[in-house]
Amino acid sequence: MAKRAKILKDLFHDTLKDIYFAENKILKTLPKMAKAAQSPELKKAFEEHEEQTHGHVKRLDQVFKIIGEKPKGKTCDAINGITDEGAEIMKEYKKSPALDAGLLAAAQAVEHYEISRYGTLRTWAEELGHSDAASLLGETLAEEKQTDERLTEIAETTVNAEAEA
Amino acid sequence: MAKRAKILKDLFHDTLKDIYFAENKILKTLPKMAKAAQSPELKKAFEEHEEQTHGHVKRLDQVFKIIGEKPKGKTCDAINGITDEGAEIMKEYKKSPALDAGLLAAAQAVEHYEISRYGTLRTWAEELGHSDAASLLGETLAEEKQTDERLTEIAETTVNAEAEA
Repeated sequence: MAKRAKILKDLFHDTLKDIYFAENKILKTLPKMAKAAQSPELKKAFEEHEEQTHGHVKRLDQVFKIIGEKPKGKTCDAINGITDEGAEIMKEYKKSPALDAGLLAAAQAVEHYEISRYGTLRTWAEELGHSDAASLLGETLAEEKQTDERLTEIAETTVNAEAEA
Repeated sequence: MAKRAKILKDLFHDTLKDIYFAENKILKTLPKMAKAAQSPELKKAFEEHEEQTHGHVKRLDQVFKIIGEKPKGKTCDAINGITDEGAEIMKEYKKSPALDAGLLAAAQAVEHYEISRYGTLRTWAEELGHSDAASLLGETLAEEKQTDERLTEIAETTVNAEAEA
């Protein structure tokens, strides 16, 4: 039998595995970033986002269930590249007054990757008639956007002013 | 002499090299995406964004000049990861009705990476007192956001409806 052509349903499933891998990678990365952060405000933001990320993984578990698939990740080169850059910052700017600024930038790159993925997945879930999955994905999307805004606020106030010292 | 600690000025310069590499990588990737795109609307969006990207590189040249540095890129693992995923989509979904949906998703991941980087760089340029550089970075940021919105529009209208065929 010839292999059937891949369709949107497959693309949705593939991308779900991509973000599942990414969220689990982020769960491993956030504690390191919280530990490295110098400002208590930034440390707290990372810790709270870790908390939230556990919820995102649970929502993804539900979405897998809705489409009748087992939760499973698939190596995501994008998140690996983004977190590698963050790790480089932690190393190169260790003890630098600019460390927090660098951590914030790395975290915002992560948030934006997630915002793009969840936006895409929500649209596709709607197209595929999975309105319940679309709602779950939309909830996480809203939280990622809030986190990004919070990081922008921290970047514009406390952290950068200290980075020039 | 002991190596001086890195400060925000260095972080700005490092991140400028990162996005310079990224923009040049995107310039190589966009023609491939335009060629692969099935919908004329998406093809046109990629072609026009390539045009725009040349302008982004020129603005970065000006920013390097403002800070007294030569324009130079530095390997950006993040954009390499993101574009690798895009290349995988082009291969796996070749001739699939979902190809355009996948290309759109890849392009939006690229846009969001750039939005995060330009937002960060603009804030840092302001902190460092380079208001002229901040303006240039802000102009590109606005264009990246517009491109992302245009892609969302295409995703929500033409492309995805066809992807289920």
